[in-house]
Parts: sequence; C-alpha cells; structure tokens
Amino acid sequence: MVAHIINIGDEILIGQIINTNGTFLSKSLNSIGFNVSKIISISDKKEEIIDCIDRSRKDSDLIIITGGLGPTNDDVTKHTLTSYFEDKLVWNYEIKKHIEDLFKKFVSTPIIQMNREQALLPSKAKIYKNIYGTASGMWFSEKDVDVISLPGVPYEMKSLMENSIIPDLKVKFNRPYIYNKTLLTYGLGESAIADRIADWENKLPKNLKFAYLPSLGRVRLRLSSTGGNMVLVKDEVEKQLDDLKKLINDIYVGEENDGSIEFHIAKILTNNFKTLSIAESCTGGLISSIMTSIPGASKFFKGGVVAYSNEIKSSILKISNKMIKKEGVVSSKIAELMALNIKKIYKSDFSIATTGNAGPTIGDLKSKLGHVYVAIASPKGVFVEFYKMGNHRERVIKKTTNKALEMLFKHLKSVKDYNFE
Amino acid sequence: MVAHIINIGDEILIGQIINTNGTFLSKSLNSIGFNVSKIISISDKKEEIIDCIDRSRKDSDLIIITGGLGPTNDDVTKHTLTSYFEDKLVWNYEIKKHIEDLFKKFVSTPIIQMNREQALLPSKAKIYKNIYGTASGMWFSEKDVDVISLPGVPYEMKSLMENSIIPDLKVKFNRPYIYNKTLLTYGLGESAIADRIADWENKLPKNLKFAYLPSLGRVRLRLSSTGGNMVLVKDEVEKQLDDLKKLINDIYVGEENDGSIEFHIAKILTNNFKTLSIAESCTGGLISSIMTSIPGASKFFKGGVVAYSNEIKSSILKISNKMIKKEGVVSSKIAELMALNIKKIYKSDFSIATTGNAGPTIGDLKSKLGHVYVAIASPKGVFVEFYKMGNHRERVIKKTTNKALEMLFKHLKSVKDYNFE
Repeated sequence: MVAHIINIGDEILIGQIINTNGTFLSKSLNSIGFNVSKIISISDKKEEIIDCIDRSRKDSDLIIITGGLGPTNDDVTKHTLTSYFEDKLVWNYEIKKHIEDLFKKFVSTPIIQMNREQALLPSKAKIYKNIYGTASGMWFSEKDVDVISLPGVPYEMKSLMENSIIPDLKVKFNRPYIYNKTLLTYGLGESAIADRIADWENKLPKNLKFAYLPSLGRVRLRLSSTGGNMVLVKDEVEKQLDDLKKLINDIYVGEENDGSIEFHIAKILTNNFKTLSIAESCTGGLISSIMTSIPGASKFFKGGVVAYSNEIKSSILKISNKMIKKEGVVSSKIAELMALNIKKIYKSDFSIATTGNAGPTIGDLKSKLGHVYVAIASPKGVFVEFYKMGNHRERVIKKTTNKALEMLFKHLKSVKDYNFE
Repeated sequence: MVAHIINIGDEILIGQIINTNGTFLSKSLNSIGFNVSKIISISDKKEEIIDCIDRSRKDSDLIIITGGLGPTNDDVTKHTLTSYFEDKLVWNYEIKKHIEDLFKKFVSTPIIQMNREQALLPSKAKIYKNIYGTASGMWFSEKDVDVISLPGVPYEMKSLMENSIIPDLKVKFNRPYIYNKTLLTYGLGESAIADRIADWENKLPKNLKFAYLPSLGRVRLRLSSTGGNMVLVKDEVEKQLDDLKKLINDIYVGEENDGSIEFHIAKILTNNFKTLSIAESCTGGLISSIMTSIPGASKFFKGGVVAYSNEIKSSILKISNKMIKKEGVVSSKIAELMALNIKKIYKSDFSIATTGNAGPTIGDLKSKLGHVYVAIASPKGVFVEFYKMGNHRERVIKKTTNKALEMLFKHLKSVKDYNFE
C-alpha cells in the first residue's frame, strides 16, 4: 500500500515553519505498514492542489492532505476537493453545533457566519469531528484512491490521526506487517562501519532494507522488513540484527528506543548510587547541560566547573600555572589533572574533563585547531584520549561532548568489577 | 523565477528525521527572490529521482536536490544524475586531495577506496568543494533548467549554500529585488505585541508582508517587500521599521543579522574589556555553553560553576548550609549570593546565577515546580528576578536561560555610566 502526503501552506514554502506534519504523518503511516513514497509541500492555490492530487493518485492508494481548512479566503482546500470530486457542500448540523459550542466555551470574540460555514461540508465525504478546532477532517473514497483532508494545526491533525484516521485505515486497508529496529553505535564513521560489515550487508536478503543514519560520530543503523506474516518478518529482522551485533560489539550502545548514551550513563550511575562531576574547558558547559537535561539528574550529577580561562583552571581546579605553562593548556596532563581534581573537589565517583582548541582562530594557544584531550577519572584511576575534531567550532564542541560521553559509557560498561548491572 | 526543492532520503519518508533542509533551502531561495513552489521528499531510488526531476523541470527554472551523496551503496544521487544528464564520472584530483587531507587531519580511521571514489564526479557539472565533508556539491546547467545537488548533512549543505551556491545564483539569475529585515524582541508574547502595534500593522501598504515568528519568549518580527527598484523597496521597508522600532523600544534587541542577545552581550563586554562568570543550578550549564558557542568567547568569558547539588553551592560557591536551610535553595537570597560569590571567586566584572526547580518532580526541594530565581551581579551591585516557567522540564531550562541573558543584556544597555556605547 503506497501513500503520499501533501502539505498545503505558503508558510512551508517560504521557510517560515518546519514541516513537522509531514514527519508525524509519515511515521504514523509507516508504523501501520504503509509505504510513504512521497511528501509534497505546495501552496494554497486551487490549480496546484488539483494538479498534485491528479499526479499522486496515479502512484498511490492513499493521499493524506493537511492544511488550507481555515475559515478565511486564503484557505481553499475544502472547496477545491469538493469540486474536484464533483461533490457539493451541505450543512452538517452536528458539526455546526460543535463549532458554536467551541466558540461559547473557548473563544472571547463572538462567532460570525464565516466560522459557522466551516460546517458546510462535502456530501460524499466521511466527516471527522475535530475536538480541538473548527476545521473537520474529510475522507473521500474513490475506486482507485482514498483522499483524506486534515487541518494543518499540528495538535488538531495529530488528535484526528490517532483517534480516528489510523483506526479506520487499519480496518479499510489490508496492509503488510512492517517491522524495523534501529541500533545506536558510536566512535566509528559511516564508511568504516560499512567496510567492516560489508559481508553481512551483501548477504542480506533482498526484502530487508538497511540504512546508515550518521550524525557527529554516532551512526544509527536501521534494518526493516515487511511481509504478510508478523512472526516471520520480526524473526528475520531480529536474526539478522543478532549477527550484526556480533560484528559491532565494541561500538554498540543499545537499541534506539532504550535512549541515547547519556540515558544509559544516567541509568548505570543512578542504579549503583554513583555520582559524576564535570570539568569543561573547550566544551564550555555543554556536557553538564546534557546531563542536566535528563529528568532525575540530581540523583547522580553533582555539578561541574566551566574553566574557560587558565586563571580558573588554577584557582578553582588547583592546577598550578607552572604546570599549565610547562605542559600547555591543551595537553594530556592538564586534562588528566582537571579530571582528578574536579573528582576530588566535588567528591564524586566519576568525572569527565575536556581541554581543546575549538577555534575559529588559534588564539594564544599553542595547540592546533580542533585538537582536543578528554579525560575520565574513576575509582580505578584516570585515562586520557586525544582527538582531532575538525575545523568547525560548533562541531568541535559537539563532537568532543559526544566523545566524552562515549568514553565514560564505554568505561562504565567495560569495568566488570564495579559490580554494575 | 520558480524553484523546486527535492530532498532525497528514506529517513524523511519513514518519519525518522524532520526535513529541516527543505526549510533552510526555501528560506534561502525566497530571500534572494526565488518563488519556491514545491518541496518534495522522495526515497533513495534511481527511478523515483529521475521521475521527480523530469516532472519538476517542466514547472521550474531551478531544482535543488539534497541527500544521497554518501560513499555507501544506498546513496545513488550522483550516479543517477550523471546518467540522467548523459554524463560520465571523472576523477577530480583537487577534490581527491581534499578528501585525503580531511581524513589525515580529522579522521582516526584510515581512508578507504570508497571514500576516495567520492572524488569521481560528473564531467559536465560545476563542482563545489565541501570544506566540512567529502561529498561535493554539483551544478548541472541545461538549457531549460539548472539542477544543483548538495549533501544531505545539514551543516555541510548550509555552508555550501551560503558560501558558494547563493552567490552564484545571484549572478546567474535575474531576480526581482527583494528586501526583508527581521527585528529581535524579548520579554513580550506574540499576541501582546500584535495588540500593541495593531494600528501600525493595519496601515501597512499592501505590498509589504509582515510576520511574527515566536519562540520561547522571544518574538522575531519580519517585514519584507519585493519590486523592480532596489532603492524604493529598501527605503519603504526601512521607513516602516523606523516607525515600528519606536513602538517596541523597550523590548527591542536588535536586527537579526547583528546576532541574538548573546552576541550583543559578547560584543559589549569584549569592546569594553569586561568579563563574565556564571553560576548555574537549574540551567545546568546551558547558559555557559551558549556563551562558549560564540567565537572569541575566551576574550570575555571566564567560566562558570554548575552547582547542581547543595554541597557544591556550599563548598565551591561558599554559601553556608545554614543559609541554604534558612532561605531554601530556590530563593532570591541564594540566587543573589550565588551571583555575588561567583563574581568574586572568578574575579569577573559581571555574573549570572540561576536557581530553580525544573521538575519533572518536586524532589526534596521546598519550591514549586517551575519557580525560578535569576540574579545578575555587576560593578553596581546585584539584582534578582522571580519567574514561573511552567511544568515542562526542557522548557523551564531554556526559558530560564533566555531570561537570564535578557536580564544581563537589558542591564548592560541601560546603565549609561558604565560608559558603554
């Protein structure tokens, strides 16, 4: 079953709003076994809408349209669909009463005729009441295609989809079963992973689809399949993933639904009553702010120091100016001392420290652009890693943050005698 | 001049990622006078890409394509375009060297043939070097249409657009002159602003377009106009904005191109050789990380303390446990002391401090969910403000961060005898 999504609205085409409706609809439709082959944004013009539906009905079984259902003159979707399907508008008295009720309860301005006329609806379409708004959903069933029109306001559209449209789609369409799972990895680039798992990937049965989704040193690997038999489809994906996991054991974080690295770290620390502190130079507070963003962070996160100047590294983190001068502020030794000292000062079990040169200019630092040291201190001691993070300031900061979290995660997972998990 | 945008990638069609590339490109193209009439997302399939270009070239002068340029087998855009335009791939040695350099400088794994082959590029296309990545931009010029292919990674695509494609589009296409300017405001909601400026807005000439762009307590106001005469279009927009500025003087930050509040703060501090430090409780490092994200931050930003636990507020920020117990950790007094003490300890001219309850649970804090205190210390003394930030953790943290930066900005602007600008 192939679906197309059409999002109507000038605000999308001028780049004023991000088309999150397209994302929500494609996710919803995929989850019930539709194959969304096209998402199209067009403007509020009658000819464009008709042309777009005409083309899409040739390639799809289902078209979902959002937007253009407001009461004002610039909203043309309802009239366009009504004439396109050679239908006429008739009063829907249940909807009329609903609109009048909404105005009474929630709107401070009095209702006007323009609002009431939103209850003038096409006679052939199945009408769906929008509990949050005055624009109804409409479902036109033709022999070759089903066309559903929904309001463009995201929470109104979502509510109609979840409560009415999805259940009805499940009844009407005989869909294949679909199953997909995404694995999180870290520390290895897309092409290096591809190289490593080439044999596995080449041997994948043709009906399985595999994709790499890279972002800042973390690559998500997604495998999906569809078929008539739920058990077979699921088993096939899981069996292949078991084989894949063996090949990527050292870079594997977990399944996407279990949360990203910071959630795994938070879970391990909280479950074991261990604490964390963070001393940040080049990452400037980003690691702390990510750990803080996790609900319940106060259970394991003691806090941190943003030691952006050498002065603070010396006064707060107790690293002597002599040592900074001797080693250079971007050095393995300084990262190590930052981690050890923040751990001691904040009385935490674990700590993270970063020092590096994020650019854009080298400034007065002796280090090279993008050169970064990350240290992890633990009850076992301290270790430091060196990275080259590129020449883009924002990315140096974000990649260093990701690397630091990965190092801590890997350490927490690897050291068996912490008695974790 | 009509443009179509085609975003290639299964991850968009299954709803895994939001298509922000479409938004960025439509905004960029509109800003230089293109009319974007369609944004289309399709999958990584050769036939689909060809079909989509074939249809779009009938209705448009320019097609920009993103995605599908990676080195792996699921990326087919380069090969598809090369065969569609009856071209062949040839080695581009400058790009080959660039790819090898990127690997040498920034990648820890060795380069493999798959990466080098990204320098195999269509002979007829103009090639654009991607300084942040290995996938080049390509521009095919045909009689009836120009087709530009860019990488799907957002920051790589953005950099290519801003530095190369937009300038070249301006040269090649004869577009109507378009002028728009966006003003940044803070501290007042969208409808309150609309109410205040209703008279001004109603009197706007019909050819000018005005839009509100709200986000977390900051509203951007954009006015735009198009026409054949550069001077007239620009003058009309600027004249209207001068009138608007008089109405919003108390909530006005500056023009969008001059940067957001943090950039204004950075500029004022740097120009006056003043420094800043930050003590964060509920914002957990986010304010520090925003200030650090500004290039040249080391000139004015001394650093900060993330005092997530009472223990740290006492040991590092020197606030007695007795005081915390007496006042409550989320209180005006504690915010004040945090600001005064971090300023003293970090020897800075100004400081920011936050303490609040971001939720989701009240925990052992006596304060109410979403209640927040923000303090600013300066050479003049210290002042504190209290806010209710709602019950959504992420939004409490972000709104508090915005408020804190606004308070400091307002203070820096208002106090004339700092001799600042």
